[in-house]
Amino acid sequence: MPNRRTIIGVIGAGQCDAATEAQAFEVGKLLALRGCVLITGGRGGVMRAASEGATGAGGLVIGILPGESAEQANEFVELPIVTGLGEARNVIIARTAHGLIAVGGEYGTLAEIAFGLKFGKPVVSLNSWPVDRHILQVSSPGQAVECVLKAIEEGHGQAGAQAKNG
Amino acid sequence: MPNRRTIIGVIGAGQCDAATEAQAFEVGKLLALRGCVLITGGRGGVMRAASEGATGAGGLVIGILPGESAEQANEFVELPIVTGLGEARNVIIARTAHGLIAVGGEYGTLAEIAFGLKFGKPVVSLNSWPVDRHILQVSSPGQAVECVLKAIEEGHGQAGAQAKNG
Amino acid sequence: MPNRRTIIGVIGAGQCDAATEAQAFEVGKLLALRGCVLITGGRGGVMRAASEGATGAGGLVIGILPGESAEQANEFVELPIVTGLGEARNVIIARTAHGLIAVGGEYGTLAEIAFGLKFGKPVVSLNSWPVDRHILQVSSPGQAVECVLKAIEEGHGQAGAQAKNG
Amino acid sequence: MPNRRTIIGVIGAGQCDAATEAQAFEVGKLLALRGCVLITGGRGGVMRAASEGATGAGGLVIGILPGESAEQANEFVELPIVTGLGEARNVIIARTAHGLIAVGGEYGTLAEIAFGLKFGKPVVSLNSWPVDRHILQVSSPGQAVECVLKAIEEGHGQAGAQAKNG
Repeated sequence: MPNRRTIIGVIGAGQCDAATEAQAFEVGKLLALRGCVLITGGRGGVMRAASEGATGAGGLVIGILPGESAEQANEFVELPIVTGLGEARNVIIARTAHGLIAVGGEYGTLAEIAFGLKFGKPVVSLNSWPVDRHILQVSSPGQAVECVLKAIEEGHGQAGAQAKNG
Repeated sequence: MPNRRTIIGVIGAGQCDAATEAQAFEVGKLLALRGCVLITGGRGGVMRAASEGATGAGGLVIGILPGESAEQANEFVELPIVTGLGEARNVIIARTAHGLIAVGGEYGTLAEIAFGLKFGKPVVSLNSWPVDRHILQVSSPGQAVECVLKAIEEGHGQAGAQAKNG
Repeated sequence: MPNRRTIIGVIGAGQCDAATEAQAFEVGKLLALRGCVLITGGRGGVMRAASEGATGAGGLVIGILPGESAEQANEFVELPIVTGLGEARNVIIARTAHGLIAVGGEYGTLAEIAFGLKFGKPVVSLNSWPVDRHILQVSSPGQAVECVLKAIEEGHGQAGAQAKNG
Repeated sequence: MPNRRTIIGVIGAGQCDAATEAQAFEVGKLLALRGCVLITGGRGGVMRAASEGATGAGGLVIGILPGESAEQANEFVELPIVTGLGEARNVIIARTAHGLIAVGGEYGTLAEIAFGLKFGKPVVSLNSWPVDRHILQVSSPGQAVECVLKAIEEGHGQAGAQAKNG
């Protein structure tokens, strides 16, 4: 029987500046070094940088693609899951990951954060949307990774979720 | 050939207090009086109150249901669309509506607002998440309805959307 | 409280010959005359012809669109539901309709028939896939409409479904 | 940059007899020995048996789950992808796999076969639905695996798909 590893979602914009990319790369790398599987939306920007970081450190990278072809995955995705569902694929990332790390991000990232909170997952923000006190604010990639893993271990996220419905 | 009427989404929590319900009822009623079709998630709370308001004023009400049966629709939904997609059905409401009015709301509503902004739809907030300057803040049901219809007429929402990607 | 009308799905290919179109038109027309709401995939071929028939007879037509814009609906769709889900939108038609009438059709239609059978809905075939004895074979539009309405009234479909799982 | 391995979907009923289970086990095992990643719907019956076969031979197993929790995955799924999409998750398997092997199966399997054919994927049937001449009929697990890999290598499936629309 296989051991199931912890799966962490890294979410953020498909286009971003070099500083955000560098942070996403570092988050991906640290997650891989901690033995986590990385799940992202499989495309560019934050998704690609985190995947590159994870791959370079020997990690496994899953990409949940919005379109109809594996061709749209960035080159660091090892397992492209082709959904054809457009933005609805965000729900799959939020449901599959044990915790989420948002790095910067635009409206798609905000939707993902909202789903993560709704599903009771720990959500860590590195310069992302500060919309809710249940989001764990951090200021470095290292803190982001430690914070999400600690919250998963302690069963956080679930509590916030149970107080909310709608 | 049928005329296509303007479709407005009213979004909010599945459970809410009486004051929020009264506002949602009034929004639904005013939308129907302005000739709009109402689309909601088809369940309780804000969704049910808006549907009751619209139905009482002779409006047509569509409910985009998360579960696998029309039985879960509130009694004021005339056309239950049964998706079986869970929370991913929020994407359908945001894509189908020409504009969205959020009345209060929790994390599911926040995801819906984010999708609405991403898809370039006008999003009006009546005591809902104040997360972004592109959300149109109003303080009464009457303002909410006028504001969303004016924004649709003027093609607002689209502009905000084009500046964003991710 | 609104009365919920019977919703019937007409499924078939997006491109078809004139004879198939004529049959789909007639099916749509007869459904409208019997007071049913028509639901289709909202595009061309069988979907468009059935919608034209229903609209001409004063019926209400819902189109469950695969793409991201209402623009792709045929001109006889009164209520375009924009899913952005691609082929996964077929599941919504099979779940929402009380019964399905397949007119000709290719692989997408076969998937729809399979979902209809799985969900325990009566499925009528007019020159469509003869894959299973639970599919009700008919030879004219008039028979198709009578057959599906009779099966719904008698609660057929459900029985077949309960014997099946997988 | 990671090498992308061939991903094969094994589809079939969630409950099945011992003979079908034995075939599914063997298919899973042979796929793993050929270096393929296995993708299934993640649940019981054929899905579980194929996953057990693949895991025992050192293969990687992805389960695309219909429900809202990884708990519903069988114990041989290494990577549970939690969709919450119900039957619509079948589309993801058909889009993600490079080829499909159907082992027995009921209506859900038929829908999957139809989507596979629609998306131009090679579809191999081992005692499954004989609905179309494009389905490759085989009589043993060994033949099933060789047949699907040969078809992928030769680019089959695509041709059939291009002649079809709807």
